Amino acid sequence: MAERPRVVIIGSGFGGLAAAKALRHAPVDITVLDRTNHYLFQPLLYQVATGVLSPADIAVPSRLLLRRQRNATVLLAEVESVDLETRLLQAEGGKLQIPFDYLIVAPGARHAYFGHSEWEPLAPGLKTLEDAREIRTRFLLAFERAEREPDPAEQALLLTFVVVGGGPTGVELAGILPTIARRGFKGDFRRIDPARIHVVLVEAGPRLLPTFPERLSKRAFRDLETLGVQCRTGAMVTQITEDSVYLGDERIPTRTVFWAAGNAASPLIRRMGLAVDRAGRAQVLPDLSVPGHPHVFIIGDAAAAEMTVPDVPRGHARPSGAASYVPGLATAAQQMGGHAAEGILRTLARKERLPFRYRDRGSMAVIGRNRAVALIGPLQLGGRVAFWLWLLVHIMYLAGFRNRLSVLVEWGYAYFTFRPGARLLTDLTPPPPHVATQQPPQTWPE
Amino acid sequence: MAERPRVVIIGSGFGGLAAAKALRHAPVDITVLDRTNHYLFQPLLYQVATGVLSPADIAVPSRLLLRRQRNATVLLAEVESVDLETRLLQAEGGKLQIPFDYLIVAPGARHAYFGHSEWEPLAPGLKTLEDAREIRTRFLLAFERAEREPDPAEQALLLTFVVVGGGPTGVELAGILPTIARRGFKGDFRRIDPARIHVVLVEAGPRLLPTFPERLSKRAFRDLETLGVQCRTGAMVTQITEDSVYLGDERIPTRTVFWAAGNAASPLIRRMGLAVDRAGRAQVLPDLSVPGHPHVFIIGDAAAAEMTVPDVPRGHARPSGAASYVPGLATAAQQMGGHAAEGILRTLARKERLPFRYRDRGSMAVIGRNRAVALIGPLQLGGRVAFWLWLLVHIMYLAGFRNRLSVLVEWGYAYFTFRPGARLLTDLTPPPPHVATQQPPQTWPE
Repeated sequence: MAERPRVVIIGSGFGGLAAAKALRHAPVDITVLDRTNHYLFQPLLYQVATGVLSPADIAVPSRLLLRRQRNATVLLAEVESVDLETRLLQAEGGKLQIPFDYLIVAPGARHAYFGHSEWEPLAPGLKTLEDAREIRTRFLLAFERAEREPDPAEQALLLTFVVVGGGPTGVELAGILPTIARRGFKGDFRRIDPARIHVVLVEAGPRLLPTFPERLSKRAFRDLETLGVQCRTGAMVTQITEDSVYLGDERIPTRTVFWAAGNAASPLIRRMGLAVDRAGRAQVLPDLSVPGHPHVFIIGDAAAAEMTVPDVPRGHARPSGAASYVPGLATAAQQMGGHAAEGILRTLARKERLPFRYRDRGSMAVIGRNRAVALIGPLQLGGRVAFWLWLLVHIMYLAGFRNRLSVLVEWGYAYFTFRPGARLLTDLTPPPPHVATQQPPQTWPE
Repeated sequence: MAERPRVVIIGSGFGGLAAAKALRHAPVDITVLDRTNHYLFQPLLYQVATGVLSPADIAVPSRLLLRRQRNATVLLAEVESVDLETRLLQAEGGKLQIPFDYLIVAPGARHAYFGHSEWEPLAPGLKTLEDAREIRTRFLLAFERAEREPDPAEQALLLTFVVVGGGPTGVELAGILPTIARRGFKGDFRRIDPARIHVVLVEAGPRLLPTFPERLSKRAFRDLETLGVQCRTGAMVTQITEDSVYLGDERIPTRTVFWAAGNAASPLIRRMGLAVDRAGRAQVLPDLSVPGHPHVFIIGDAAAAEMTVPDVPRGHARPSGAASYVPGLATAAQQMGGHAAEGILRTLARKERLPFRYRDRGSMAVIGRNRAVALIGPLQLGGRVAFWLWLLVHIMYLAGFRNRLSVLVEWGYAYFTFRPGARLLTDLTPPPPHVATQQPPQTWPE
């Protein structure tokens, strides 16, 4: 063992960074490994995906956040394998071998397509800045294509957007699309009326926002319908093609589908040789360590951490098979990061570790301008109050970011003008997959 | 002919947009075609390339800028061919055919590698937002790789940056790199000292900024050397490889090369069947129209427009073979756009067209914080005065942009903290070409 225990943290998301920060005064050498160079404020990713915010507004280099913490080193590296016995991990195609005494695994999750990985290119999900740019490109490009399209049927196809998944991400993404199209794009086109946008939100379960109380689910449904989003609950997507989403026999004609329906923990967990559940998560012990490997912790979206009954927040529903686990929220990941760090400190101090207890900080989903739902302890809020609360909480969360001021500028601009400020199409070559099939040449004007 | 004359403008850069705006009250139907959806403030592109600004800070959707102009339609389309005889152009793989009565061609320029197109993947240039992101990625990635690199020789290779081309773009890019590394990255790394950055600026001609008076060239040279940039004038690049730039027999070991050495007009000009000069530009008549095709204008970087002697700005040097042409500057393109529009209006009014006269608005290059050179009429400025003048002029130019406020926020942040606010690595898969060659596995720490 080195002079000071070596703590390696995989992932610089909410969990990994919280763990690193919680160890700032500890006599350990920390190495944070991440495949990106930034800490990403994922809850606002849908605003980058719709051009309201720029990537730099919600992402900060992780090494900048840890620069004053002299016991922490940040390395840009993709971890390929972890040997729990020899306590050695390999990264960057084996070029980098990193030994550890303690390991905190916080690699996050990707989308899950429930065995239909062929849908991924047709229905991109929203987890990274690259995802957000891909969705932004498809959203903006659909309008550009509709504008140069003479066939009204194809125009309608291009102006239909299907969002799959009625959790917070799906609700937030579906909710913002009609507002941007109707208000933000007003007057910008000559051959199409962007207000003709048609947004369909598809949820397989019986209601939207399944982790919220039923009252707020209903509120979200109503608010979305008021905004013009067609909400289809209890509807299972059975097929996605270049021009359709099928719900069983029913066909929704569309050229643009976004995926917000399921999570799968990073494949690293499986590669570590651990048993995983359907969502790719590893079961952890109450102290968040891996059974049989007390020096290895798994936290955040990659961990299946059982909640003891008193932890289940009041008012929260229990979707079958999920409710007994710590939810996949930013604050949960942060708490788990802090707890794993504390576990290491306790072991170093020869104290017994404590079981993790999730402290509910509430949850929120914004549906549109002046519309949101919020659940804080026993409090169930909707509408304008919830919206401004959401805004306040997110500005406070961003406070650690130097980007706060520019986010305020962008939000102020977007709130008063309805216009997205980062409406950029880049990387148009090679063209995205949704290229219209061969057509006879069009003449312009027809 | 349609009821109203159809004016088609190719390109929504400085020239194309100025032409469209100059026709706002004209009884014509304007179609602006562009392969991107945005108007790009190219003079600040190097700040996006170094992470100081976000793409959205310097780019605005062209349809947003033209939305109140009811006689203008914007179409996202890549033009493939133009038939000057039948007055029909083809775009989007022939799917779109657009007839015109008047055509203004303003497609801009790409980089020229002087017959060495194999250098392009090794030494990216800086013309588009994609280019800027590519350069930003390579710049940031070099430091990330150096940090995880145990071999000091490879570290030095990674921390050496060569900028080829001593015009304003090369000078501005080379000048900003050491400041960002020394001040902006200070304290962020553990195994490397970013202040060890080594920047080399290579210029084939006898001096930097060849279009400026000799005194300002010398000033720029001195300022850059003070910042730690090694300036190599009279040095021709003869070869670029994965780990070297060769100047004849001399080798500069480096993993990162940026190209700012030459322009070539869009290949569209050649595809139009016009005779082009070495820079791919078409010779135009004094009214900026194409010889034999009075209804077709070529403007901006794609036009070789001869300057009559009185147009040559005072103080400006004449680099051999270039001085008699209107310079490739934003203001020149804007003036040409306005002039082409006026030419159409005069023809519609059955008046004779006037020859284009370039009005010199001065030129500037910023070298670093508090350092710039400026040439305004007879005035030659350097240092702090020129820097603040540069800042003032650019803020004024950005005034038409809604991004002005966020640029001010970013600049204020960068000026006082030295930190680039958009220091993001995205699209790391597939890895950029400069992958280190096969190495034995490294152990961390060594």
